[in-house]
Amino acid sequence: MRDKQFYMHHALELARLTIGQTRPNPSVGAVVVKDGRVVGTGTHMTAGEPHAEVFALQQAGEQARGAEIYVTLEPCAHYGKTPPCSKAIIDYGIKKVYVATLDPNPKVAGKGVEWIRSEGIDVEVGVLEEEAQEINKMFFYYMKTRKPYITLKTAVSLDGKMTANSGDSKWITSDQSRLDVHLNRHRHDAILVGSETVLRDDPLLTTRLPHGGINPTRIVLDTHLSIPLEAKLLSNPDAKTIVVCGKHADTTKEEAINQINHVQVWRLESERVELAALLERMAEEQLMSLYVEGGSTIHSAFIQHQLFNEIHLYMAPKLIGGAMSKAFYNQFGFEEVKDSIHVEFDSIEQIGKDIKIIAKPQVEEG
Amino acid sequence: MRDKQFYMHHALELARLTIGQTRPNPSVGAVVVKDGRVVGTGTHMTAGEPHAEVFALQQAGEQARGAEIYVTLEPCAHYGKTPPCSKAIIDYGIKKVYVATLDPNPKVAGKGVEWIRSEGIDVEVGVLEEEAQEINKMFFYYMKTRKPYITLKTAVSLDGKMTANSGDSKWITSDQSRLDVHLNRHRHDAILVGSETVLRDDPLLTTRLPHGGINPTRIVLDTHLSIPLEAKLLSNPDAKTIVVCGKHADTTKEEAINQINHVQVWRLESERVELAALLERMAEEQLMSLYVEGGSTIHSAFIQHQLFNEIHLYMAPKLIGGAMSKAFYNQFGFEEVKDSIHVEFDSIEQIGKDIKIIAKPQVEEG
Amino acid sequence: MRDKQFYMHHALELARLTIGQTRPNPSVGAVVVKDGRVVGTGTHMTAGEPHAEVFALQQAGEQARGAEIYVTLEPCAHYGKTPPCSKAIIDYGIKKVYVATLDPNPKVAGKGVEWIRSEGIDVEVGVLEEEAQEINKMFFYYMKTRKPYITLKTAVSLDGKMTANSGDSKWITSDQSRLDVHLNRHRHDAILVGSETVLRDDPLLTTRLPHGGINPTRIVLDTHLSIPLEAKLLSNPDAKTIVVCGKHADTTKEEAINQINHVQVWRLESERVELAALLERMAEEQLMSLYVEGGSTIHSAFIQHQLFNEIHLYMAPKLIGGAMSKAFYNQFGFEEVKDSIHVEFDSIEQIGKDIKIIAKPQVEEG
Amino acid sequence: MRDKQFYMHHALELARLTIGQTRPNPSVGAVVVKDGRVVGTGTHMTAGEPHAEVFALQQAGEQARGAEIYVTLEPCAHYGKTPPCSKAIIDYGIKKVYVATLDPNPKVAGKGVEWIRSEGIDVEVGVLEEEAQEINKMFFYYMKTRKPYITLKTAVSLDGKMTANSGDSKWITSDQSRLDVHLNRHRHDAILVGSETVLRDDPLLTTRLPHGGINPTRIVLDTHLSIPLEAKLLSNPDAKTIVVCGKHADTTKEEAINQINHVQVWRLESERVELAALLERMAEEQLMSLYVEGGSTIHSAFIQHQLFNEIHLYMAPKLIGGAMSKAFYNQFGFEEVKDSIHVEFDSIEQIGKDIKIIAKPQVEEG
Ligand SMILES: [Zn+2]
Ligand SMILES: [Zn+2]
Ligand SMILES: [Zn+2]
Ligand SMILES: [Zn+2]
Repeated sequence: MRDKQFYMHHALELARLTIGQTRPNPSVGAVVVKDGRVVGTGTHMTAGEPHAEVFALQQAGEQARGAEIYVTLEPCAHYGKTPPCSKAIIDYGIKKVYVATLDPNPKVAGKGVEWIRSEGIDVEVGVLEEEAQEINKMFFYYMKTRKPYITLKTAVSLDGKMTANSGDSKWITSDQSRLDVHLNRHRHDAILVGSETVLRDDPLLTTRLPHGGINPTRIVLDTHLSIPLEAKLLSNPDAKTIVVCGKHADTTKEEAINQINHVQVWRLESERVELAALLERMAEEQLMSLYVEGGSTIHSAFIQHQLFNEIHLYMAPKLIGGAMSKAFYNQFGFEEVKDSIHVEFDSIEQIGKDIKIIAKPQVEEG
Repeated sequence: MRDKQFYMHHALELARLTIGQTRPNPSVGAVVVKDGRVVGTGTHMTAGEPHAEVFALQQAGEQARGAEIYVTLEPCAHYGKTPPCSKAIIDYGIKKVYVATLDPNPKVAGKGVEWIRSEGIDVEVGVLEEEAQEINKMFFYYMKTRKPYITLKTAVSLDGKMTANSGDSKWITSDQSRLDVHLNRHRHDAILVGSETVLRDDPLLTTRLPHGGINPTRIVLDTHLSIPLEAKLLSNPDAKTIVVCGKHADTTKEEAINQINHVQVWRLESERVELAALLERMAEEQLMSLYVEGGSTIHSAFIQHQLFNEIHLYMAPKLIGGAMSKAFYNQFGFEEVKDSIHVEFDSIEQIGKDIKIIAKPQVEEG
Repeated sequence: MRDKQFYMHHALELARLTIGQTRPNPSVGAVVVKDGRVVGTGTHMTAGEPHAEVFALQQAGEQARGAEIYVTLEPCAHYGKTPPCSKAIIDYGIKKVYVATLDPNPKVAGKGVEWIRSEGIDVEVGVLEEEAQEINKMFFYYMKTRKPYITLKTAVSLDGKMTANSGDSKWITSDQSRLDVHLNRHRHDAILVGSETVLRDDPLLTTRLPHGGINPTRIVLDTHLSIPLEAKLLSNPDAKTIVVCGKHADTTKEEAINQINHVQVWRLESERVELAALLERMAEEQLMSLYVEGGSTIHSAFIQHQLFNEIHLYMAPKLIGGAMSKAFYNQFGFEEVKDSIHVEFDSIEQIGKDIKIIAKPQVEEG
Repeated sequence: MRDKQFYMHHALELARLTIGQTRPNPSVGAVVVKDGRVVGTGTHMTAGEPHAEVFALQQAGEQARGAEIYVTLEPCAHYGKTPPCSKAIIDYGIKKVYVATLDPNPKVAGKGVEWIRSEGIDVEVGVLEEEAQEINKMFFYYMKTRKPYITLKTAVSLDGKMTANSGDSKWITSDQSRLDVHLNRHRHDAILVGSETVLRDDPLLTTRLPHGGINPTRIVLDTHLSIPLEAKLLSNPDAKTIVVCGKHADTTKEEAINQINHVQVWRLESERVELAALLERMAEEQLMSLYVEGGSTIHSAFIQHQLFNEIHLYMAPKLIGGAMSKAFYNQFGFEEVKDSIHVEFDSIEQIGKDIKIIAKPQVEEG
C-alpha cells in the first residue's frame, strides 16, 4: 500500500545505504512525493556535502510545490556547511512534512519542526520512528549522553577460549564471521586494540569488504609507547591512527610518531591509560562509536568498568582447552557468581559454521 | 553484508518506488559505489526525464571514476529523449557494472552490455535477476510478446456472487480491499470496463490512494456508443479515456465524444468489439498493461478467450445468495467440468476481513 | 519439560486418536503418573466400553495409589453402562487429578470434580482447556444448546460454480480435497444430501479413508419419497440411512423403505421438510453433528435460515463459467448486498492444488 | 489425514511418554486400528512388564483379527521376561504391521519382521523412521557400538566461566535451565561427577522435576576413595551409586562403602581412573547413556579423548571474569587453534534468560 509507511520505508532504505560513511553526521534519507508520484529522492553521503533533503528537493524542482516530503530525521535548522534544510523545505513550497524521528540532540530537538510549522506547513513526527532510531543508534546515544557507543567484539571457541595455549588466536572463527567483523568496522567511527595485540599480531585494522568499506580511526592503547614505528598501524596510511599513552611515556618516541602524517599521539594525564579520560577525549573529537577488538586485557578493563553498549561474541565450533589459553575477560572478575555483571541476550544468529551472540547491559527494571 | 546483493537490493528498492509512474518506460534504480562508499543514487521518475543511471552518475561526479554502478535493468544503448546511459557509464569512468537483468526487448537485449564491455569495462549480469523482472513484469511481458499484460479483477461473496439479486454490487468488499484495487490501478497503464458498468454505476475509475496515485487510461467497451456524454469518464478530465465501438456505431455521437479533450473514440472494423483487435491497438499505442474491472459480460469474454495473465479475486465474508445474482464468469462456460479452463493459485492473502486470491494461467508441463 | 502441560498434552493426543468413533460419547484420554513415571494410559474407544480413566487405572493397578491422573474431560459421576470414573479414581487411591475441562452438560458439569474433592483429593481444572474443548467441539455445542453442530461443505471453481452448464459436478476438486471430505465424514455423526443429489449421482456417502473410517448416519431429504429402492443409500448396508419426508408422502413407499434393515423413514408433520423439525428430531436421537453435502437447494435452505456452524468451501483452480451452472447458494438470497449474511473467515489452507476456506457465523460484538 | 503417518505419529507419542523409564529397554508405543477405528493402544512402561504391543492387542481382543498394528520399533522375536511380541501379533490375527524402525541390535534386526512375514502377514518398515530413532537415540547408539552414549553438560557465563574466582559455581544459570538439566538426568541411565565436585558441593544428583522423574545411577570418579561416608551420594538411597577408584585405593574404605546398600565400588586395574575401562564396564552393565556433569577436570578428560556424543552448554547472561575462574575445558588443550577439536553446532535455544547450545562431534565428510 502506498501510504506514509511505504514512502518512509523507502526513505529509511536510502539512509541504510550510507550507514558508516557520513560521520560525524547521521545517515538520512528523503523522498518527495507529489500526487502519488515520486519526484525526488536523496541520501546524505558525506559530511560537508548536501543533506538528503537537498538532493531530493533539487530533483523535484518546481514539482516540490505542494508536495510531501518524507525525511528519516528532523530537518536541520542551523546554518552549517550547508544552509538549513528546514529553510529549503519552506522555500521549495512543500505542503506536508513526514519526519521519522526528532533530532536526538536535546539542545536542537524540535527546532526544525517548529520552524517549518511556524510557516503554516503541516508536520507529522514519528512515522517508523523505532527503525529510524535504530539506523543511527550510535549517533543517538552519543547525542544524548556525549559518550561514545561501545561495542566489544570477541571470538571464542565453544569452551570460551580466545587463544590456544601458545597465545595463538588466528582463525578461530570462519570467513563469514570475519566479514561480519569488517562490516562492523565499517559502521564504527573508531576501532581499538591494546599494544600487546599490535606487538603480537601487527594488525592492519582496516575495513576489507568485497566492495570496499569505510576505515574507522584506529586507536592503540600503549601506556609506554612501546609499539615499533614499523607497525602497520603507523606505516599504513589508509586510516587515521591514534596512539594513546600515559604521562610518563617517552617524548622522543612521541615526536617520532607524531611525525607520521596520519598518526597522532594522545598523552593522558594519568600514569596508565584511564578509559574514562580516553572516552572523554574521543567524545570531544566527535568519535561517537568505538569497536573494541581486544585482547583480553583491554576487554577485561572495559567490562570491569561496565563500559559497553553491546558485546558481540562470535563462537566457533571448536574445543581448544588448556590451562594457558585465555578467556576474553580473564582479569579482575568476581569472587562469587552472585556478584557478577548481569547482561541480557539480545540476539543469537548462525553465521556460517559459527554462532554470533549479541548481549547488552541489563535494562534496569521498575 | 555489504556485498553485490546488498547494493543491488537498494537499487531495486529505488526502482520499486516508481512502479506505475514511468510508463511507457520501466521502473529502474541505480546506485554508484566507490571504495565501499555510496556516491550516487537515482531512480527514473518520468518518461522523458533522466534515467536512473544519470541521476546516480551526476551525484557521483568525479567520484564515479573507478567506481562500480549497480543498475536494475541493462543500460540503454540508443539515442532517445536522453543520450544513452551506456555512453554515460563509459564517459564517467565506471570500472565495473552490475546489471540485474538484460533489456527484455529481444531486439535490443544485450546491446548496452556489449557496448560497455567493448570499452573494456567489466559487466556482471544477473544479480537478483528474478526480483528485477518481477518489478517490471508487465513491461517484460509486453516487450517479449507485444501484447498487454492483463489482470482481471473481481470482488465476490463467499458464495461467488458479484452482485445481489437486484444487480447491486456496491461495497461487497471492505475499505482495505478497495485500497488494494486503487493500488493496482496505479500499477496498470489502462483500466477497462463495459458500457453496462458505466450506465449502471457511472464510475470515475481514477486512482484514489491516501497520498495520490497515477491514473490509468480509462477504456470503455461500448459497441453502440451508448454511454451518455455526461458520464464521469467523459466529463472528468483527470485521466485519458478511450471509448471503443463497433463499425456501425453512430458517427455523430463519435464526433461529439471526440470533441472532448481527454477522450478518444476507437472504432473497430468489426460489428462488435473484438478483444483481439482491441489488444492489438493497445499494444500499438504502448498501453502495456490492462486492469479489467468488469462487469461479468466483460470478464466472461476475457476468460472464455483465455485473455488474462492474472485473476485477482477479492472474496468478502458474506453470503448473498439468490437466483438473479451474478457470478463474474456467467456466460459461455462449459458443459462438463472436465472441459473447464485450468489455472493455478499463485497466492492467498488476508486483506482486512476479506481474502484476496491470485490465480494465473496453468503453466504447461513437460 | 515434564510438567502438567506435558502429561495433559499426551492425554489430549490419546483423545485425538478416537475422534469420530466414540459417538454419542466424546473422545477422552487419560494418563496416570507416579513419581514421574507413567504407569497407565488409556483412551475411550467405543460407547459402552470402558472409559479412558478405567484403562489407565487398570494398567496402573497398585501403582495408582498416591499417583496423579490427567484426564481431558471431567470424570463421569453417574452409573451408566460403566461405573462412574470419579468413583474409580477415588477407589484406586489417586492423590491428584488434573482435568482439562469440565463436562459441557450444564446439568452434570462439576459433579465429578465435586465428588472427588469431597474425598479430600486435590483437583485442578483447566489445563490446556481450549485444546480439550476443540477436540470435542461438536459434543460441547450439542450439550450446551441441544442442537446438532452443522457443517456445510461445498466444492466450487474459482468462479464460484458447483456445477457446469449441464449440471455436471464430478471431480471439481482434487483427490486430496476429497480425502479431506472423507475425514470430515468420519468426524460427523450424520451426513445429509437432498433427493436430487441421490437421483442424479446415486452416492454411497460412506467414509473411504486409506485405513478405513467411521460411517456417519446418512440422511436424505425427500419430501415425496421419490428416491428409488435401488439407490445405493437404501441398498448398501454399511451405514444407517434415514429418509426424511413430508406428511403427504406415499405410505406404501414408506413401508417398503422401512422394510430395509438399516433404513428408517422419518415422516415430519409438515408438508415439506422443515429443517427446524428435522434438527430437533436429530437432537432427540443424539445425532450431535451434521455434515451437509448439498446440493444447492439444500445449502440454500440451511444458509437462508442461518443454520450452520461452519462452511467448508473447497475451491478448485478452474474456471467453469456459463449461465446454467450453479453456485452453492443460488436460491432466496438478498436484493441488496448490505442485507446479506455476514460471516467470518476462520482459516484458509492449501490442499493439493485446491484451496480450503472455512467460514463461521460472525461473532456478535459488544 | 488418517493415514499411516497419523497412526504412527500417535504410536510415537505414546513412546515419548515413557522416555527414561524403561531402561534397559527402549521406549515403544503401539496402536491397533480396525476399519479406521482405534481398538487398542499401549506403551511399554517398565522393564519386565508387558511390551507396548501386548497392551494394545489385549485392549483390541477379538477386534485385532484382521486389524492393522502400528509399532514404533520392530516387535521382539525372542522369549524373554515376556513372550515375543511377534508371536502375539501373529496369534491375534493382525493382517498388516507398520514398523517405524528395525531393532538396532545388528544380531536381532529383522528377525521379528521376518517371523511375521513368514506367516504371510504384510509388514511395512520405515514409517516415520527418523523420529522413531531419535526417541531412542541412546539405545540405538549403544546397540550398534556397545558403548554408552555420552552427553557432557556444562553451565557457563557469557565469558565462558564455569566458576568465579573463589571456585564458586552456584546458580550461574536460571531455574529454567536447571529444570532442563533435571529432565536430562531423567533421560540418561547414569550421571557422572568427579570427587572434587562431591567434596566441594556434596550434590544429591537425583531428578527433581515438578511431577517427579527417574533417577539415573550416580557415578563418582574417585581414584583414592577420598569422598566421606557422609556424602549425600552415599547416604541418600534414592538412586544407585557407583564409586570408581584406581587399583591402589584403600581397601578398608572400599569395604565400608560397599556395606551401603545402594552403593557399589568399581575398582579399576589402572592406577588412575581410565575412562575407556570405565565405559567398557558401564556397557557390560547395560548402562547405555551417561550424563557427565563435571567439573572441569572430568570434562577436560572426556573432551581430550573425544569421548562425547553431545555437549550441552548452558550460557547465562553474566560476566564473571577473573584469573582464577575456570572454563569447563581447562586442562590439556592445544598449542595452536588449528589443532583444536572440531565440532558442529546442532541447535541453539533460549531457555528463560539463558541460551542452550548443543554441539556434536563433526561428521566426517565424503
Ligand atoms: Zn539538513
Ligand atoms: Zn538509460
Ligand atoms: Zn467415565
Ligand atoms: Zn516385545
